[in-house]
Amino acid sequence: MVSEVDLISFNRGIPASEALPSEKVADFSRLILKEDGTTVLQYHGSMGYEPLRKKLANQYKGKIDKDLIFVGNGSIQILDFLSKVMLKQGDTVLVESPTYDRTITIFSRAGARVLGVELEDDGINVDSFAALVKENKPKLFYIIPDFQNPTGVTASMEKREKILEIAQNYNVKVVEDTPYRYLRYYGDDNPSLWEIDSGIVLQLSSFTKILSPGLRIGWLVADTEVIEKISRYAEDTYITPNMLSQGIAYKAMVGGWLESHIENLKSLYKSRLDAILESLDNYMLEFAEWIKPRGGYFVGVWLTENIDPEQVYKKSKEVGLALSSSSGFFPEGSEARFIRLPFCALEPAEIEEGIKRLAKICLESKR
Amino acid sequence: MVSEVDLISFNRGIPASEALPSEKVADFSRLILKEDGTTVLQYHGSMGYEPLRKKLANQYKGKIDKDLIFVGNGSIQILDFLSKVMLKQGDTVLVESPTYDRTITIFSRAGARVLGVELEDDGINVDSFAALVKENKPKLFYIIPDFQNPTGVTASMEKREKILEIAQNYNVKVVEDTPYRYLRYYGDDNPSLWEIDSGIVLQLSSFTKILSPGLRIGWLVADTEVIEKISRYAEDTYITPNMLSQGIAYKAMVGGWLESHIENLKSLYKSRLDAILESLDNYMLEFAEWIKPRGGYFVGVWLTENIDPEQVYKKSKEVGLALSSSSGFFPEGSEARFIRLPFCALEPAEIEEGIKRLAKICLESKR
Repeated sequence: MVSEVDLISFNRGIPASEALPSEKVADFSRLILKEDGTTVLQYHGSMGYEPLRKKLANQYKGKIDKDLIFVGNGSIQILDFLSKVMLKQGDTVLVESPTYDRTITIFSRAGARVLGVELEDDGINVDSFAALVKENKPKLFYIIPDFQNPTGVTASMEKREKILEIAQNYNVKVVEDTPYRYLRYYGDDNPSLWEIDSGIVLQLSSFTKILSPGLRIGWLVADTEVIEKISRYAEDTYITPNMLSQGIAYKAMVGGWLESHIENLKSLYKSRLDAILESLDNYMLEFAEWIKPRGGYFVGVWLTENIDPEQVYKKSKEVGLALSSSSGFFPEGSEARFIRLPFCALEPAEIEEGIKRLAKICLESKR
Repeated sequence: MVSEVDLISFNRGIPASEALPSEKVADFSRLILKEDGTTVLQYHGSMGYEPLRKKLANQYKGKIDKDLIFVGNGSIQILDFLSKVMLKQGDTVLVESPTYDRTITIFSRAGARVLGVELEDDGINVDSFAALVKENKPKLFYIIPDFQNPTGVTASMEKREKILEIAQNYNVKVVEDTPYRYLRYYGDDNPSLWEIDSGIVLQLSSFTKILSPGLRIGWLVADTEVIEKISRYAEDTYITPNMLSQGIAYKAMVGGWLESHIENLKSLYKSRLDAILESLDNYMLEFAEWIKPRGGYFVGVWLTENIDPEQVYKKSKEVGLALSSSSGFFPEGSEARFIRLPFCALEPAEIEEGIKRLAKICLESKR
């Protein structure tokens, strides 16, 4: 039972703690230390643990070469490396609007001008994208095509092709971030952007959502020139990535355990997606609009014009609801009407109670 | 027995692989995952694992507050963070000359002008230091006061005090890097610079040389203002450090195991220091000069003027000797006569054979 006084946190996109596989990680840790302890405890090249790089490479269409794979301490730090080796002060970068807040921080910190492309229910508005590309000659476009953070939007096949056509024509590199791609609860995958055009697409991904955030493992698939630059930059930054973590991830993959774990995660999180969509339908129809994501971590909700979002945020604290500020997700200023609702770390009863509270304060915040 | 054809690597400052405690790390990994798995596998604040920060804080004189301790993925990355939050393009930084090559890279990459202070047998030349400080108004001075990389030099008490007096007078922050401090094989420690004046000294240290490089754990002791800046910069870079590693280090400390492990390391490495100093005395007296370090990883050797260092490096490959290029250690251009000899990862017989080969090629490289 959810007590009426418990805080319900809709403010962090984190895995369910009960889904963190402590015992299995301990087993994999012991195994890798036994079989290859002097590698995973020693200094190592900055590209990452070779058996893991091979294993990841084999999962890509056409079984790509391991030298196209760089494994680092989480994908956000790899994005930081990318921004350092690919961008100069004043370069323009395009992102979806809204997008992952930490990405905006990374690009801004690198001195880039970050412009947003309006996101629709099936991906960005491609006409706006084309116009922004023509006008601003961006160096790269950052996109989360599957179950986007913070909206839950998945880009349609048509838009994927159109985006890549425009990027190709104007020589814009596309950085595709795919941490949620493995967590589809309904329907079928579109091809990844990398699968459609590996020539201009760099793909980031991560073990954070499918194994553990605390192990900090992300990877990049790119051409050898970029991989070499990243590898040098990483070596000059931390010499060696966390090797024990990478050994653990390798052991999680080899026997097929990770695959079955992902199936378990999908079944756990699917019930939570169902719960949030049902609660939204039951309580929020008159206050907001949202798309229905088919996977991932988030439902992005837009309050209707007659609700005062400032009031909603203010009252959320009074009713024990933690909401993240929407402003960080928008490269060009706040859009206070937007609320990101991460649902994976909450039980269905908590989700229902949380959405009820949200509806209650929306009602009280009518203009 | 060492075969005459085996390659002997005097080019990397790494721990002996046989001293990497695979089984104990597996035990600590299982323990921490059992006791606190949902913390070490989940997202976490960027300051590091709190029990480890407390444990480290308690080891400092006066049992300092844990909020003065930041634990990250290796000390070199913390130095990168420091350079990002403390330095502006064009700022001057002083270092010992020679110094750790990666430090020069980190500072240069941050846009700083890196100037070297001549290193003598008992620490830097303090008159040169005073003159350079006066003339260049550096933001900070980076120093490895104990068993310095690459020379093995330890700063005398007198010089420690003089350095801090000058730094104090001219408002220069001192970054003291202490990864080798725990590995003293003879004699007694001088107080650390932080112990003498915690007001202007920031101390870096690391588990790399006393536990494992592959776990990537370093820490910083500094004032709360710096720690907060670093913490924010780290969060924007990688969100969370590697938590499982930090949990393992914590478990290695709590029962006192790490202390006894360090004693074992000291006894192993002491015999290797003895071996290299004996071999140098036996074979190299006519070709080089060196100081006799009382701990750490390195003996720094200066070839005498009548030896052609270019020839020595060229011939080293022919006799199966790997030497690192000396140029990286000097902020202002190469000093080819200098050779860094790391001795911890070589057995005494390998050390003797290596020094014999070095003497042989020195003899062949007389001008």
